[in-house]
Amino acid sequence: MPSEFSLIDKYFRPLASGFAPARELRDDAGYIVVPDGMELVVTKDLIVSGVHFIGDEPAHLIAQKALRVNLSDLAAKGATPYAYSLGLAMPTFDERWIADFARGLGEDQKRFGIRLMGGDTTQSKHDLVISITAYGFIPKGSQVLRSGAKSGDVIFVTGTIGDAGLGLKILRSPDLHGEGIKFLIDRYHLPQPRMDLIAALKQANAVNAVIDVSDGLLADLRHICVASGVGSVINLPQIPLSQAAKAFINQTGVRLADILAMGDDYEILFTADPKSMDKIASVAREFHFPAHKIGSIVPGEDIALLDKHQNALAIEKYGYEH
Amino acid sequence: MPSEFSLIDKYFRPLASGFAPARELRDDAGYIVVPDGMELVVTKDLIVSGVHFIGDEPAHLIAQKALRVNLSDLAAKGATPYAYSLGLAMPTFDERWIADFARGLGEDQKRFGIRLMGGDTTQSKHDLVISITAYGFIPKGSQVLRSGAKSGDVIFVTGTIGDAGLGLKILRSPDLHGEGIKFLIDRYHLPQPRMDLIAALKQANAVNAVIDVSDGLLADLRHICVASGVGSVINLPQIPLSQAAKAFINQTGVRLADILAMGDDYEILFTADPKSMDKIASVAREFHFPAHKIGSIVPGEDIALLDKHQNALAIEKYGYEH
Repeated sequence: MPSEFSLIDKYFRPLASGFAPARELRDDAGYIVVPDGMELVVTKDLIVSGVHFIGDEPAHLIAQKALRVNLSDLAAKGATPYAYSLGLAMPTFDERWIADFARGLGEDQKRFGIRLMGGDTTQSKHDLVISITAYGFIPKGSQVLRSGAKSGDVIFVTGTIGDAGLGLKILRSPDLHGEGIKFLIDRYHLPQPRMDLIAALKQANAVNAVIDVSDGLLADLRHICVASGVGSVINLPQIPLSQAAKAFINQTGVRLADILAMGDDYEILFTADPKSMDKIASVAREFHFPAHKIGSIVPGEDIALLDKHQNALAIEKYGYEH
Repeated sequence: MPSEFSLIDKYFRPLASGFAPARELRDDAGYIVVPDGMELVVTKDLIVSGVHFIGDEPAHLIAQKALRVNLSDLAAKGATPYAYSLGLAMPTFDERWIADFARGLGEDQKRFGIRLMGGDTTQSKHDLVISITAYGFIPKGSQVLRSGAKSGDVIFVTGTIGDAGLGLKILRSPDLHGEGIKFLIDRYHLPQPRMDLIAALKQANAVNAVIDVSDGLLADLRHICVASGVGSVINLPQIPLSQAAKAFINQTGVRLADILAMGDDYEILFTADPKSMDKIASVAREFHFPAHKIGSIVPGEDIALLDKHQNALAIEKYGYEH
């Protein structure tokens, strides 16, 4: 069995090569000099086999999911990705698996402009655990928190909701067939973090509160409401759905309200003053992200879910708790 | 079963309370403003049940071990501890266990002047995995790397070597008895990171290369030798041993050379110019850490292990690979 050190040498060192803060992964630590006028944003999300992914996915997809759930957090903070530390606990050291895992990271490093700075690779008894800590920069004092939502704000969400949750449902029911199934499964395997949008909205002073949708739209909206001390109204017909999700819902009769509790979307949910609508439309066009108006912030503390007749629906579940 | 969020609220939020960078753990990210003239040192070590600890230890000891293996890395870099992110993957959510785990962290936060800044708590299928990323500050450009060892340097190590490795041996052989056994087991359960020493030696310009001893003294010395392009000579009779380790060795006939490959010591191994001997003695006195001279750096790339007759011993194993 190749040793931990030789595998790190062979596959992970190239991911840090020439990046000064990583010291060629030879120093058990990374060193970050934060540029003048900037502060560091740190985010840490673990993913675990059998919980956040199934386990038999190709290794490069697991690697990219682990990195991207963290990039999605940086995106929600409007941070520019800089570097990440990789913690990897594996039940077996399989060289081909590690090679594919490192290849996935390498591709996403180029795609998102982030580099490996260090970490720890170790054995586990049973579970595959990937623990990434990601670092990004924002201008000092430019934090957009969950707690900034104000009564009267419009609630927006990027992209489409429910695809990944439906993808997971399909993976768990192998006898499901139909159109668009591959699209939904891909959305589960590989989040598309919405980089740059929030940074641009911050610069335009057009965002009050933000979160990335990972636990489920309703659960994450509730995080904003609790942190901000407000309530909210969501209009179910305004929830953006992909063609594949619509087809799957029609075919299977999944409740639309349940879609909002599925999680794994990695879209961005944000609130803004209605006066910022034009700025938001213009920024969304610039980054080719649809930003959909789905409701509004109101006084109180409850989330109301309205159907097309403006009737309030019962919320049975807010999100997926890992 | 209490939800992830309510347990975080109850037990982890107090660990971050009032610490601005943590935003009361309500924001999925931490924010670090690095003071002028400083740079950030980042270290990340995972510990896994059945690999780095047995699993049935009291939760507060597991928490403290997870934090201290990272503090030991910061200590080896001469960094002042600042904050840490906590990743926790647990097969079960047991409230009493979590309460004890958080209590252990809280005690060590006070002891070492470090605070919780964020993280991720999640379920796992089988293994308990604790992944801490720790942050500290050093003056800009004052890195002491593994790669600074020079031929002619003296090699020092703090404290005593082998205690933790023997402690683990005892835990795995429950029929072993004898004096000092509790001391050795305690040394396995609870590392004592040697904070402040390297920072003081750096300031006195009295250290060339440094590493903390986690994989085994020989394995970690080899990291320094490889990074620095040098060889080394270790005098076995100079290896500092505790009374308990000496007694256990006499009783069981464990080879002294094997002690150097046991790991989990979390002592500091460093090299320095012989001219710095007086400064080192003075700093070691100030911090009440014995710093023992155990050998010297030489040209070449090999590690020679000499017995009391100056005969070279075969090295069967360099360290413990997790």
